[in-house]
Amino acid sequence: MGTNRLEAFSDGVLAIIITIMVLELKVPHGTAIDALVPLWPVFLSYVLSFVNLGIYWNNHHHMLHATQRVSGAILWANLHLLFWLSLVPFTTGWMGENQFAPAPTALYGVNLLLAAIAYWLLQRAILSAQGSESLLAAAVGSDWKGKLSPALYAIAIPLAFVREWIAGGLYVLVALIWLVPDPRIERALVKREGGPR
Amino acid sequence: MGTNRLEAFSDGVLAIIITIMVLELKVPHGTAIDALVPLWPVFLSYVLSFVNLGIYWNNHHHMLHATQRVSGAILWANLHLLFWLSLVPFTTGWMGENQFAPAPTALYGVNLLLAAIAYWLLQRAILSAQGSESLLAAAVGSDWKGKLSPALYAIAIPLAFVREWIAGGLYVLVALIWLVPDPRIERALVKREGGPR
Amino acid sequence: MGTNRLEAFSDGVLAIIITIMVLELKVPHGTAIDALVPLWPVFLSYVLSFVNLGIYWNNHHHMLHATQRVSGAILWANLHLLFWLSLVPFTTGWMGENQFAPAPTALYGVNLLLAAIAYWLLQRAILSAQGSESLLAAAVGSDWKGKLSPALYAIAIPLAFVREWIAGGLYVLVALIWLVPDPRIERALVKREGGPR
Amino acid sequence: MGTNRLEAFSDGVLAIIITIMVLELKVPHGTAIDALVPLWPVFLSYVLSFVNLGIYWNNHHHMLHATQRVSGAILWANLHLLFWLSLVPFTTGWMGENQFAPAPTALYGVNLLLAAIAYWLLQRAILSAQGSESLLAAAVGSDWKGKLSPALYAIAIPLAFVREWIAGGLYVLVALIWLVPDPRIERALVKREGGPR
Repeated sequence: MGTNRLEAFSDGVLAIIITIMVLELKVPHGTAIDALVPLWPVFLSYVLSFVNLGIYWNNHHHMLHATQRVSGAILWANLHLLFWLSLVPFTTGWMGENQFAPAPTALYGVNLLLAAIAYWLLQRAILSAQGSESLLAAAVGSDWKGKLSPALYAIAIPLAFVREWIAGGLYVLVALIWLVPDPRIERALVKREGGPR
Repeated sequence: MGTNRLEAFSDGVLAIIITIMVLELKVPHGTAIDALVPLWPVFLSYVLSFVNLGIYWNNHHHMLHATQRVSGAILWANLHLLFWLSLVPFTTGWMGENQFAPAPTALYGVNLLLAAIAYWLLQRAILSAQGSESLLAAAVGSDWKGKLSPALYAIAIPLAFVREWIAGGLYVLVALIWLVPDPRIERALVKREGGPR
Repeated sequence: MGTNRLEAFSDGVLAIIITIMVLELKVPHGTAIDALVPLWPVFLSYVLSFVNLGIYWNNHHHMLHATQRVSGAILWANLHLLFWLSLVPFTTGWMGENQFAPAPTALYGVNLLLAAIAYWLLQRAILSAQGSESLLAAAVGSDWKGKLSPALYAIAIPLAFVREWIAGGLYVLVALIWLVPDPRIERALVKREGGPR
Repeated sequence: MGTNRLEAFSDGVLAIIITIMVLELKVPHGTAIDALVPLWPVFLSYVLSFVNLGIYWNNHHHMLHATQRVSGAILWANLHLLFWLSLVPFTTGWMGENQFAPAPTALYGVNLLLAAIAYWLLQRAILSAQGSESLLAAAVGSDWKGKLSPALYAIAIPLAFVREWIAGGLYVLVALIWLVPDPRIERALVKREGGPR
């Protein structure tokens, strides 16, 4: 079985998640510019989640591009990832509507942590189906980003109850780390497809 | 006519159904962790429906993968299945928001039962278009899961009015039975594509 | 330019339209079976619109399958059709929530009439791009269904103010006429692809 | 990496944005035709945004059709464009529900301006990946539309506070300028694929 329909379904779910988040941005009642001020934290949390989901889509895209076979375990690991990502609109909304209050900010981190673990499990499932000699295995290598991110989330969650902005800053930091698509996978792909070596 | 666009449309509808269900998880008003407690049954019913829709997507995927021709009857049997699945967000929401009260729990079972029957009808339509000698016919074989599931739902529905948790337990049991993608179809596909026999 | 992306986009929009309609089925507040009774007209109008959108998807599918080239006129004629179909959840909701009151029932007919005209314009645009000798031109032939449907809608709209059920009955009648995918196109396609004659 | 999945994801997001806008058209409470009158500005702003998103889809379609390679910069420039487009349902809703009041009308222009800039950046990213000798570079040429549109939006935004209808008129004017898909790209594509020269 190829990866086409898995990608198509994941794209569909990710596209919908990323788009229904904007429904949390409720149309304000006033007609003056001031009416937008209370929406500021909602907008900010929307931007953060949009970027995070964009990163997942981007990396998911690269990872499945390097995948040849789809097994039952991969299908379910993928659905497991989509499950946690589908909760992002909810946790984003709770955090945004409460001006980054401690508990909502911590829960947002829990959601991101569980999604990161689910992504790691999906990568495991793909690697074990492809074999340790595979293109993806070589490309992923030490995977320091994939190990650092959950660690940073795990630190951020309790810190949300001390200072919310520390947790928020750590979420932004993880996003910045990932913002660039993984050059190792791209390099490995280029090597296979293009060059003599 | 190929199965491509049928798969794409079904994927789109399933992706949307699975994602808009999360809109039932309304952002709570408080900012404390306690504010999440009343959402527990809504979350639980979301998980159950997410898994059920994932199973349908998975099996639908396998079944259409073994389908070569699409007839008008298949198109409409597929839309009929999507119709009952499109009601899952509604019945899930009613059950979750009422802490698994008897009538909503029974209605959820009715919905699952009708979807199971629709799936069986779709399988019939595909089998009759492919012929009894087809790959899918061999793969489906006795189809004990497809026969057991509606029977368990039919038992669960009246029992929801006796003890809700018995009905809920039966719904979970059916999900567990299906959780693994059908090995018979996979085996038959492997046989055709890969091996000498 | 091929028809692939046009089909994919149309599939996406149709899948979303068909699915967000179910959001009009608001989760009732009571927990007894009676709580569902007021939802009956909403459910009925949902079924009617689901079938109508299924018919559009089905026929759109067949028509584009017989299309080789996509022009700018076809792209915009297609968006025009999607525009009127995108209003179906709104007109369905107004009709369903008001138990098929005269004005909402008439507006529903206006929506269906404008969608039928848009479909006819799209067919015109495709035919003029393919040429009158084309496969589709032969397949469409006299197109009695495409001419009868708008006429029946035009009759139904004023009758909604006399007796609502006459208008509703005519909407159901048009759906029944279209329910079967157009055998002429299928026959012409089969002729081209498969047989010696 | 090909453009397929980028197109599929963009199509998904655009299809959802275009469709959830209709959720702003809330079902009115009355059953008389008069109940629709207050919806007039909401409907009008929906039409304007539907056409604008249709234009973006159309041009995006043509631009990616002339794209051979997808880089990380293109992926993110594309997500950046989708981000601003995802806010269109919000700004459309605010403008429509307030009968084109000055501030909402200006904000709508800001949204369109930022989307136009994002589109220009995406075109830059694609051109720099394809090289100045590329098909797209030749096709885009002087790109007077792409330069005029942001200028007109920038003029319209302050004018919304003087006379709302001037801003609205300028938005419609930009839409009319773009309504026709870019003949230069189509001509260049035809030249490459079809003709001897």
